[in-house]
Amino acid sequence: MCQLLGMNANVPTDICFSFTGFQARGGATDVHSDGWGIAFFEGRGTRLFLDPNPSCTSPVAELVRQYPIKSTNVIAHIRKATQGAIGLENTHPFRRELWGQYWIFAHNGNLLNFAPELDGNFLPVGLTDSERAFCWLLQQLRQRFGSHCPAHAELFAALHALTLEVARHGEFNFLLSNGDWLFAHASTRLSYIIRQAPFAEAHLNDQDITVDFRALTNFHDRVAVIATLPLTDNERWQEMPPGTLWWFAEGDVVERRETMPGPVKKAG
Amino acid sequence: MCQLLGMNANVPTDICFSFTGFQARGGATDVHSDGWGIAFFEGRGTRLFLDPNPSCTSPVAELVRQYPIKSTNVIAHIRKATQGAIGLENTHPFRRELWGQYWIFAHNGNLLNFAPELDGNFLPVGLTDSERAFCWLLQQLRQRFGSHCPAHAELFAALHALTLEVARHGEFNFLLSNGDWLFAHASTRLSYIIRQAPFAEAHLNDQDITVDFRALTNFHDRVAVIATLPLTDNERWQEMPPGTLWWFAEGDVVERRETMPGPVKKAG
Repeated sequence: MCQLLGMNANVPTDICFSFTGFQARGGATDVHSDGWGIAFFEGRGTRLFLDPNPSCTSPVAELVRQYPIKSTNVIAHIRKATQGAIGLENTHPFRRELWGQYWIFAHNGNLLNFAPELDGNFLPVGLTDSERAFCWLLQQLRQRFGSHCPAHAELFAALHALTLEVARHGEFNFLLSNGDWLFAHASTRLSYIIRQAPFAEAHLNDQDITVDFRALTNFHDRVAVIATLPLTDNERWQEMPPGTLWWFAEGDVVERRETMPGPVKKAG
Repeated sequence: MCQLLGMNANVPTDICFSFTGFQARGGATDVHSDGWGIAFFEGRGTRLFLDPNPSCTSPVAELVRQYPIKSTNVIAHIRKATQGAIGLENTHPFRRELWGQYWIFAHNGNLLNFAPELDGNFLPVGLTDSERAFCWLLQQLRQRFGSHCPAHAELFAALHALTLEVARHGEFNFLLSNGDWLFAHASTRLSYIIRQAPFAEAHLNDQDITVDFRALTNFHDRVAVIATLPLTDNERWQEMPPGTLWWFAEGDVVERRETMPGPVKKAG
């Protein structure tokens, strides 16, 4: 199993504080030592740092922790391998281009017997169920909407339908972003917090570090942080119920939909 | 105009020495200060470091210079913007997936009136002529060969035909790799050197640094380094004649083809 970290903000924000706690879970305070990665959107571009080594000892993670890259959408992942060997090609997040936008994806869970037909437009490079699911999602979106990104609501409805299909194969917690929106699926475990005025102090769970957001923010700033497990011990994180797909934009929740299959109806 | 650096080796090799000289050209010893990037293949995976800031002062470049990432194929680029603003989305190298392989591309030059029809399978995210050319190359390869990578010779022949078409639009020095091979097109200016036994000392052009490759190599190691301008002042770099496309594999030249249009034949 793995851990996910996401950020969606209304102004470019650095993720150094959250990443410090998250990084410690990659082999220091937790067991997720089979690689890690983080992707930052900056405008339409992305920076993608991947390392098949544990994040707690990675010089690349150290750079990320100390170099305040400002971004409105971030997705990070630390890996405990289930499917696919330890290697760079199996390290999340994954990136592909669709509709002239980069899409970033990271997954926590395990999909069984998930071998959909792929038409060749998006093919996995590595051997994980996660990258296969990502390629299939993009293929289906491309087939449905052609060469242009649809309106937001249409996209979210399509993503909801596709998530239902994949989630039948097992645990499918994921984060997905195109730089404008961040989609989060809580299949079993995911929490979020929205930080906005009045800002306060926050203290990490995984290291004895406190930050005072009052000194770092402006009144209109709003930042949603999504993580497998809460990163701080003095804030009120919201648990995202298993079987919910969330759409974040501008640091806030736009919409959520259920993805739990309802009880099977008995024939009369 | 920009500068290119490529490496193709028969064993995973770090590029720290060459990158040290190359990095200095990004704003210190030369004027290419509009961003830089470097991509490393590690097996089927890639690491891609991009920074829209000058490489000579970039903390990410400092990490790359000091962290010996071992790779068999590397492509790096420092940018002097011609088309497309300074920004992450316009920073080379570019990466896309084709045939379940990552492809990395960087370009030095300027293409005029190059606006080919794109079918939506590979669309530029930024605004450079370079990314447009890369997307078109991949689209044409995909159209020609479908979902599977063809045999080497077929691929090189197709790439040669496509290069001829793009090169009609202007200066088109490029490096392209899928992790197995590195293709280099000298449109106006490109040089290479092959380092193999007996190894010797090399001294950088751009900084007073010497490395003794005898201490760092084994007898069977072979490394091709390709650069816009020679990086060392005591080795014999080969100038690649304008209008030549090269195929490198395992640290050596496999084949080259002319890309200069011949003299126009007069009608009889």
